[in-house]
Amino acid sequence: MYFHDRHLQFTSKPEKPDALYAAKFQEILGGQFGEMTVMMQYLWQGWTCRIPGKYKDMLMDIGTEEIGHVEMLTTMLARLLEGAPSEVTEKAVAANPVLAAVIGGMNPQHAIVTGGGPMPTNSQGVPWNGGYIVASGNLLTDFRSNAAAEGQSRLQTSRLANMTDDRGVKDMLAFNLARDTWHQQQWLLGIEQLIEDGFTDGIEDSNADWERKDQDHTFWSLTRGSRANEGRWARGTTPVTGQEIVYVPFEEAGPLTDDDGTLPPPDPKLFVTYDGSVGAPKPGDAAGAPLQGAQNVVSKVKDAITGDDH
Amino acid sequence: MYFHDRHLQFTSKPEKPDALYAAKFQEILGGQFGEMTVMMQYLWQGWTCRIPGKYKDMLMDIGTEEIGHVEMLTTMLARLLEGAPSEVTEKAVAANPVLAAVIGGMNPQHAIVTGGGPMPTNSQGVPWNGGYIVASGNLLTDFRSNAAAEGQSRLQTSRLANMTDDRGVKDMLAFNLARDTWHQQQWLLGIEQLIEDGFTDGIEDSNADWERKDQDHTFWSLTRGSRANEGRWARGTTPVTGQEIVYVPFEEAGPLTDDDGTLPPPDPKLFVTYDGSVGAPKPGDAAGAPLQGAQNVVSKVKDAITGDDH
Amino acid sequence: MYFHDRHLQFTSKPEKPDALYAAKFQEILGGQFGEMTVMMQYLWQGWTCRIPGKYKDMLMDIGTEEIGHVEMLTTMLARLLEGAPSEVTEKAVAANPVLAAVIGGMNPQHAIVTGGGPMPTNSQGVPWNGGYIVASGNLLTDFRSNAAAEGQSRLQTSRLANMTDDRGVKDMLAFNLARDTWHQQQWLLGIEQLIEDGFTDGIEDSNADWERKDQDHTFWSLTRGSRANEGRWARGTTPVTGQEIVYVPFEEAGPLTDDDGTLPPPDPKLFVTYDGSVGAPKPGDAAGAPLQGAQNVVSKVKDAITGDDH
Amino acid sequence: MYFHDRHLQFTSKPEKPDALYAAKFQEILGGQFGEMTVMMQYLWQGWTCRIPGKYKDMLMDIGTEEIGHVEMLTTMLARLLEGAPSEVTEKAVAANPVLAAVIGGMNPQHAIVTGGGPMPTNSQGVPWNGGYIVASGNLLTDFRSNAAAEGQSRLQTSRLANMTDDRGVKDMLAFNLARDTWHQQQWLLGIEQLIEDGFTDGIEDSNADWERKDQDHTFWSLTRGSRANEGRWARGTTPVTGQEIVYVPFEEAGPLTDDDGTLPPPDPKLFVTYDGSVGAPKPGDAAGAPLQGAQNVVSKVKDAITGDDH
Amino acid sequence: MYFHDRHLQFTSKPEKPDALYAAKFQEILGGQFGEMTVMMQYLWQGWTCRIPGKYKDMLMDIGTEEIGHVEMLTTMLARLLEGAPSEVTEKAVAANPVLAAVIGGMNPQHAIVTGGGPMPTNSQGVPWNGGYIVASGNLLTDFRSNAAAEGQSRLQTSRLANMTDDRGVKDMLAFNLARDTWHQQQWLLGIEQLIEDGFTDGIEDSNADWERKDQDHTFWSLTRGSRANEGRWARGTTPVTGQEIVYVPFEEAGPLTDDDGTLPPPDPKLFVTYDGSVGAPKPGDAAGAPLQGAQNVVSKVKDAITGDDH
Amino acid sequence: MYFHDRHLQFTSKPEKPDALYAAKFQEILGGQFGEMTVMMQYLWQGWTCRIPGKYKDMLMDIGTEEIGHVEMLTTMLARLLEGAPSEVTEKAVAANPVLAAVIGGMNPQHAIVTGGGPMPTNSQGVPWNGGYIVASGNLLTDFRSNAAAEGQSRLQTSRLANMTDDRGVKDMLAFNLARDTWHQQQWLLGIEQLIEDGFTDGIEDSNADWERKDQDHTFWSLTRGSRANEGRWARGTTPVTGQEIVYVPFEEAGPLTDDDGTLPPPDPKLFVTYDGSVGAPKPGDAAGAPLQGAQNVVSKVKDAITGDDH
Repeated sequence: MYFHDRHLQFTSKPEKPDALYAAKFQEILGGQFGEMTVMMQYLWQGWTCRIPGKYKDMLMDIGTEEIGHVEMLTTMLARLLEGAPSEVTEKAVAANPVLAAVIGGMNPQHAIVTGGGPMPTNSQGVPWNGGYIVASGNLLTDFRSNAAAEGQSRLQTSRLANMTDDRGVKDMLAFNLARDTWHQQQWLLGIEQLIEDGFTDGIEDSNADWERKDQDHTFWSLTRGSRANEGRWARGTTPVTGQEIVYVPFEEAGPLTDDDGTLPPPDPKLFVTYDGSVGAPKPGDAAGAPLQGAQNVVSKVKDAITGDDH
Repeated sequence: MYFHDRHLQFTSKPEKPDALYAAKFQEILGGQFGEMTVMMQYLWQGWTCRIPGKYKDMLMDIGTEEIGHVEMLTTMLARLLEGAPSEVTEKAVAANPVLAAVIGGMNPQHAIVTGGGPMPTNSQGVPWNGGYIVASGNLLTDFRSNAAAEGQSRLQTSRLANMTDDRGVKDMLAFNLARDTWHQQQWLLGIEQLIEDGFTDGIEDSNADWERKDQDHTFWSLTRGSRANEGRWARGTTPVTGQEIVYVPFEEAGPLTDDDGTLPPPDPKLFVTYDGSVGAPKPGDAAGAPLQGAQNVVSKVKDAITGDDH
Repeated sequence: MYFHDRHLQFTSKPEKPDALYAAKFQEILGGQFGEMTVMMQYLWQGWTCRIPGKYKDMLMDIGTEEIGHVEMLTTMLARLLEGAPSEVTEKAVAANPVLAAVIGGMNPQHAIVTGGGPMPTNSQGVPWNGGYIVASGNLLTDFRSNAAAEGQSRLQTSRLANMTDDRGVKDMLAFNLARDTWHQQQWLLGIEQLIEDGFTDGIEDSNADWERKDQDHTFWSLTRGSRANEGRWARGTTPVTGQEIVYVPFEEAGPLTDDDGTLPPPDPKLFVTYDGSVGAPKPGDAAGAPLQGAQNVVSKVKDAITGDDH
Repeated sequence: MYFHDRHLQFTSKPEKPDALYAAKFQEILGGQFGEMTVMMQYLWQGWTCRIPGKYKDMLMDIGTEEIGHVEMLTTMLARLLEGAPSEVTEKAVAANPVLAAVIGGMNPQHAIVTGGGPMPTNSQGVPWNGGYIVASGNLLTDFRSNAAAEGQSRLQTSRLANMTDDRGVKDMLAFNLARDTWHQQQWLLGIEQLIEDGFTDGIEDSNADWERKDQDHTFWSLTRGSRANEGRWARGTTPVTGQEIVYVPFEEAGPLTDDDGTLPPPDPKLFVTYDGSVGAPKPGDAAGAPLQGAQNVVSKVKDAITGDDH
Repeated sequence: MYFHDRHLQFTSKPEKPDALYAAKFQEILGGQFGEMTVMMQYLWQGWTCRIPGKYKDMLMDIGTEEIGHVEMLTTMLARLLEGAPSEVTEKAVAANPVLAAVIGGMNPQHAIVTGGGPMPTNSQGVPWNGGYIVASGNLLTDFRSNAAAEGQSRLQTSRLANMTDDRGVKDMLAFNLARDTWHQQQWLLGIEQLIEDGFTDGIEDSNADWERKDQDHTFWSLTRGSRANEGRWARGTTPVTGQEIVYVPFEEAGPLTDDDGTLPPPDPKLFVTYDGSVGAPKPGDAAGAPLQGAQNVVSKVKDAITGDDH
Repeated sequence: MYFHDRHLQFTSKPEKPDALYAAKFQEILGGQFGEMTVMMQYLWQGWTCRIPGKYKDMLMDIGTEEIGHVEMLTTMLARLLEGAPSEVTEKAVAANPVLAAVIGGMNPQHAIVTGGGPMPTNSQGVPWNGGYIVASGNLLTDFRSNAAAEGQSRLQTSRLANMTDDRGVKDMLAFNLARDTWHQQQWLLGIEQLIEDGFTDGIEDSNADWERKDQDHTFWSLTRGSRANEGRWARGTTPVTGQEIVYVPFEEAGPLTDDDGTLPPPDPKLFVTYDGSVGAPKPGDAAGAPLQGAQNVVSKVKDAITGDDH
């Protein structure tokens, strides 16, 4: 359950409004790696964490902080949009040609839809969506995704910070950059803790016992003239599993099979173009006599019923 | 420029068709972390890599391999869908109640739209989209995202592998799992190489010189009763920057500002509800006399023209 | 700024897991009118409210409560998914045919993507997106949208409640239904308050002074044989503006203009099909001499410069 | 079944083309509350109305009118785009700096994709989608949604009208504003009629008999220092159900449960991180002996078979 | 402007409800090639047609018919959903195991969201969107797109028709199939008319005078072992331009350039990883002295100002 | 399986950077008919082609070529973005007003997200998505869709080519235009080959034996005053089936049925508004006695069981 304090976590006041900058600023609010994403991502991981205690609490702590970051960014945007040109006329443009840039580059929804407020979209107007959230229940993979998200988010914030001279904006972004520096490292520490607690050795390796062993430490070069063999990934041992890396050069790389992807005949009732070259087509009509296609579809289920073990 | 060999990289043949499994299988083809994502992500990063040589070539090598993985998965799906029930009737259901599951759970687009082929969508039918791709130009952040993507992708493949007994499917997934094991480690090696080459110290820290230093090594606890202080992230030093971590307990955490987010008055022409409590509203009409709102908007630009330095 | 308490606002415990019901339950979490929508909608309206005090605080109070509702629903879903069939085999289906429904109707992402947790999507797997949020800055229109959203949300919750006999689920939904009953009325009270405070007379009527007066109280019937004239909307006075309603029957309804939508000639450089029937095509090349097309485009701006008033 | 008259319902002729304004104008055609939305929403509600006669006919009458409104807006856009700069060159920009605004702010798809025509998108280029439509079959909730949509739509139209001096555009928008004034009131009258006909008392209250009564008239304040208690929503009686409102101040608000969201153990085959603290993990393998996880999943179904009534 | 007749164009009555079939039926209503697409596509092309008379009128005639087709399909869906299991219980499933398929395969939104009505989505629940519409203003390309859309639409309708035995459904689909047969041919006739009227020779060939002539009649084979040379596309003359086709076999196909895609140095302020190998990085700071990066960006514009012709 | 050559298929070098043009250029990379679409569309059709040999190989040949086209376009974009204004300041704008157009019209994601690289989106920032791909398995309909896509794609490329004077850009686009000229004709030749091989007579006509014959050669005019009767589509014979076309003028066109779309009564548990006028409502509770609603739903399945033939 959540509570709110009327004060922001950190001051969010631009020196002056700037509608053009506001349009770009949307990226770190509603973009793929905007604050809406990390807020929802950490809360989601926390709500669904299956370990009570330090892991769940830590996720909730950070997720809760991020709600406040979204609050700071929406506030900043509403202030950057003060007095944005809601009814710019030709005379104004004529009197001040620089206004042209503002008219051309302003986000029209900032005026028409929100009346001078932020949009829940990225800098190009695409709505934020739940497909950005990563939450698998596996804390190793999720902490890796979180560390990556903080890196991308920090990079975008840093690029955006270079696009303004407004000291108010930069003061707040200096706070955000610092939090992103910390959060990147925090998720790396989270992985350290998972290893220390015995949950993982540092890579996702479920069902490792039956993966195809000859292919889990092998670099394939598929570019003619590639110099990829000069990198660390082409020599020495793998960092977690400690295997000797095998490098397959372009000249030796090729199919491991003679399977050329030839497909079975189609069901004639689907009207797929077919010339009969791979046998008679199989109708999917499960009611027919004899039931050929549908029989295939459910055959393994039926086998289980009859006890037939292929 | 690209070339094609008619053979697949690895055999992609199920023992038997299985339309229900095909519906689930879509997730690792067209989902957030499906093969379409890593294929496009690595190609994109390679095409836009600003360093000629080992980094660019390595990205192209792996991206090119992934095109072949998409080919393997689409082939597997077309074969899993052989004879899928395109015209199941009541009689068939009556004769074999187990068929009900197939009817209920099959992806209808596999019959209606593709005629027995794969869809470029996830397991719930949502189309793959370019918003899944990550490519920032900054190799550290991108390699972190790549390692995370391989982890998520491998986890989903592994879960999916447990949902079938088909030896043909499992043989191919054993190959895919191995490649994901390797690729996770390869991207970690990529980060090692970046550090070795002096491009980074392991975290994204652009503009670090002016970030807010007191907040880049500080854990805030915002959950009443949190036990997050028991974790590695709450004690010791930060892993890359080597600072002593500061833990702010729930009882001490609170706003760093008295800014309560009060917003400036709105432009009256936007018809935003307002009671006058924070001053006179500011019209955005840039042509008016005197130009108040628009003046604000473009003031810093005009200041630059006149040389006025606020 | 936000804080979290480790306890839920209300108990969220199903009697038993139910993976099929979980798939449907997603609608009231991540659908158009799910809890994610009202949470983000009220927070957004609160963060951008231009009146300090009771309106802003009320929005923040309710928005903060809704974060806790999302927490309750994600928790319920994680519990409903306990032991969901992650690796159902043919034998199980054979032994228990009823399991077929679960296999057929379960959301595959609940196993493959989240590992037994909720998805930020609706019941059909479509990701929640920011396009669902409504926040115009005009409190009358937003409170109307909020009252409507609570109505739709309550209706969906009520329908979903009828689809289960689980007493644990129903207990929680009984709480949610009550909150929706209250919230519907609260937003109606919000409109009362706006009227009492003199912000509105109850409908959105900005720029009312120059709207086309003969068309703001007129019902047009455009269906042959329509009996719409029997309704309250076809007789008496309008509820807010108090005008006598005019009913235009099908036989009298028709175009108010002889404008048949004939379009001007296209720019030849756009290769639009055109037969010359409405005059010479107009090139958009602004650099040509004489500049015909571009001249049109920017003419009104240039007129403003020269002071020419058409 | 539908018929068409070659004349528009109302004149749709701008005085002069204006490509910049056209880009913004898209919002009221293809945005969340654009004419495409209300057209499809009312038609949909009409097509699926379960009451023959005045309600269904009224919905069809208005929906049919809205098709004509979409026609008016697309025509306006095609005319606003006449001679838009399809091949603006440097010389033109040099000769007329004001052109810069047009180049910068024009929607590139208006030239590249449609060749001088409208797009089925909002002002930021996001395609209109069916997720905007509201149609629940419950006329009270749908009429509330319709009244809200007309309010939002009118507000956007009004804001957009203030962004131009073109008398042709304003004449048409004066018509649209009037229709929106009327339609807002019409839907309110629709609710009056529903109450008069005994279908509702004014709020959605299905299953009201078992909702949690103590929570359907209670305002929770969750913001420290909130002044929400000053509003109409915190005192007096509820408008429809007539209950005395209970106000829970911040100091007294808190969890109604000791449920802290602890989740059950995960299925080990899903590879979710887990430390065993809430019991043994439960495999979802429905074929195993004994079937623990799957047993839970389908237990209530099986109980029904055996007649066991929990 | 549009009018409505209360009768459908054609009878739309199923013999019996069928909730499972309704879920699949959504594809031809709200899918990529569903009736919503062709309705909006033809209306859009008609509203924006720049030739008054037969072309515009024909587009409007067909577009108007398609509104009625959407009406027929929504009506059919509402009837197919009569009595759909809104509250199926365990007992019902136990008594009739076949019901499991309905529970498993029904679209949950048909109950929860619409209360027994159609959704504006495809068969997988993805909302219809404006990105499906094609309208370029060039009638040749649009008529080709229309003929293709009718073919895809007819194919899906035909596949769907094979999935039911309901005579009422089949009667209506027999009508729809016939219209699709006609419409395919009508658009082909439209192309004949365009050729007859001198608008085109049958392919889109704008700017043909300067396209790269050696590459407009050349088949490149890029698959090792390809037998594509056996097709009509590899021999003889091109159908419209009448050129002799050139076949480039796999062994001879290769890059036409030594451009290896090496990219210029990045702007250091964007923090893109770079090793200096292609020269000094170029700052994008347009305010610096000398302005290097920005100078590049706007140089061609400035050249036009100074009259400098590179 | 795929291989890569480090050289592009064709030179992709602009004379000078141009960030404004880059924003527009995105349309032919990531738009509805951009190169990402045709690349994925042809590969998809090839991977799922059910005829081994010339058809499948041809699809793979062209699809593989298109991967190289995406590579060319992404390279071009990265070069057009060299030195794009990542930190444009007021002083720069003041010194060079033309820069305003660049600031206003540049795609902000080109700086913030990709650091000077292309985005996988269209010119308005909407991500490319799998819903653009067409692949039905029926080669006639797919080749028609391919020919249409090449036409739309070529038209957009041609329009875009007219928006620049850069000889480097134009050289590459001259190559692309030529390939599009060829590819349009190639798909038409593909249809010729299909006819020659006996797969089709040129239109999609599956289930033609039972389509409604009187409606497959009939033009309905539904626009008052339509002159559509002047076109080729209103007279003579149909092009493929050779039937005499029937023209139904506006005055004679009307419903073929007295079905007015009246819907059956709703399930009371869905709370749909209903007045009882079409009979008693039908509960969907399948467990009730007698089971009315659910009985309807599954009746045809049960009939099959009992052998009852309605």
